[in-house]
Amino acid sequence: MKLVKIGGSLLYRAKPLLKALKECGEKIIIVPGGGEFANVVRKVDKTYNLDPSVSHKLAIECMDLVGEIYGEVGNIKTYKTLFDIKREIDKVGVAILLPSTLLLSTDLAEHSWNVTSDSLSLYVGRLLNLKEIIIVTDVDGIYREGKLLNIINANEIEGLTSVDMAFPSLLQKFNMTAYVVNGLYPERVVKLIKGENTICTKIVSR
Amino acid sequence: MKLVKIGGSLLYRAKPLLKALKECGEKIIIVPGGGEFANVVRKVDKTYNLDPSVSHKLAIECMDLVGEIYGEVGNIKTYKTLFDIKREIDKVGVAILLPSTLLLSTDLAEHSWNVTSDSLSLYVGRLLNLKEIIIVTDVDGIYREGKLLNIINANEIEGLTSVDMAFPSLLQKFNMTAYVVNGLYPERVVKLIKGENTICTKIVSR
Repeated sequence: MKLVKIGGSLLYRAKPLLKALKECGEKIIIVPGGGEFANVVRKVDKTYNLDPSVSHKLAIECMDLVGEIYGEVGNIKTYKTLFDIKREIDKVGVAILLPSTLLLSTDLAEHSWNVTSDSLSLYVGRLLNLKEIIIVTDVDGIYREGKLLNIINANEIEGLTSVDMAFPSLLQKFNMTAYVVNGLYPERVVKLIKGENTICTKIVSR
Repeated sequence: MKLVKIGGSLLYRAKPLLKALKECGEKIIIVPGGGEFANVVRKVDKTYNLDPSVSHKLAIECMDLVGEIYGEVGNIKTYKTLFDIKREIDKVGVAILLPSTLLLSTDLAEHSWNVTSDSLSLYVGRLLNLKEIIIVTDVDGIYREGKLLNIINANEIEGLTSVDMAFPSLLQKFNMTAYVVNGLYPERVVKLIKGENTICTKIVSR
């Protein structure tokens, strides 16, 4: 079973990716990012200086909205609990987690903008006992000085982009491996899911 | 008890209004608009040509997000059911309805962009047996040929702005009266709530 987080940057461009995931024949759990909805929360937060816990909760609820959209666009079933996903994943193949129920009920993460859907997806992976996560975004991977990195250690990632601030240390804490890959090339994501080589950045935790 | 719909156009400018409502000493139920969150749904809908029912549901869920924000910004309690609001309104004075539970469970409205939070608020008013609703927006009322109208009949409203397409006929069907008022001047809203004269447009249904 593969855990694939689809970043909100793909909100308006996710259809080919979702189609490819649905048709690739692998078991996949999709965690949505908060996308432009979460950006509205950021703006509101800047306007009113919200309690960080409130922003955190609202941003998580935005992930549900994007999940509903991905479900509709990709004709993929959505689920609110891991219980339901585990019962049905063999049958449906690809499932979207609407994560607010899980994330708010467990409340494992720091309440700050250092934690976005990247880190939150790691908590989901941890609860599923997975050792890998695929972070799908709209760039080819992580760059350093203009050069795409094939592999990087989590402890070297600070200051580089593509994942949130809390992600590297969480990845290490959970001893997981992450791949950052460009969802505008769905075939790359499918290759990663099938364990084949492709253009991406692998983040190792040790 | 007064029903006040606060439009999403005030998302970033609602604090003085919420403060005034909280302090005015009247019993008020606030229904939030979907604001910029709902605009993201419109964009997504334009991109993917979503099923109208899906857009309708997502836009309603956006009203909850705005309601949570108004609750935090105004330090006003939020409620998911009329049952809970009715039990507490005497105690709390001002309450915010997070309307998705009510609106999706009853499913009374047409699933189209003709119905926005204006019309949806009418359904809430109807369920509360209210005869009036106050629509708070960021303009002084309804204009015709550049002139602010003090009063207009619902059947003359077509083509003018400030309320959604379905609103006039619903108002007539429910035999209700609406006031459109500028929330950037909180004292106007308070005056309306107290039954005093102020700058606004009254929409009568017969």
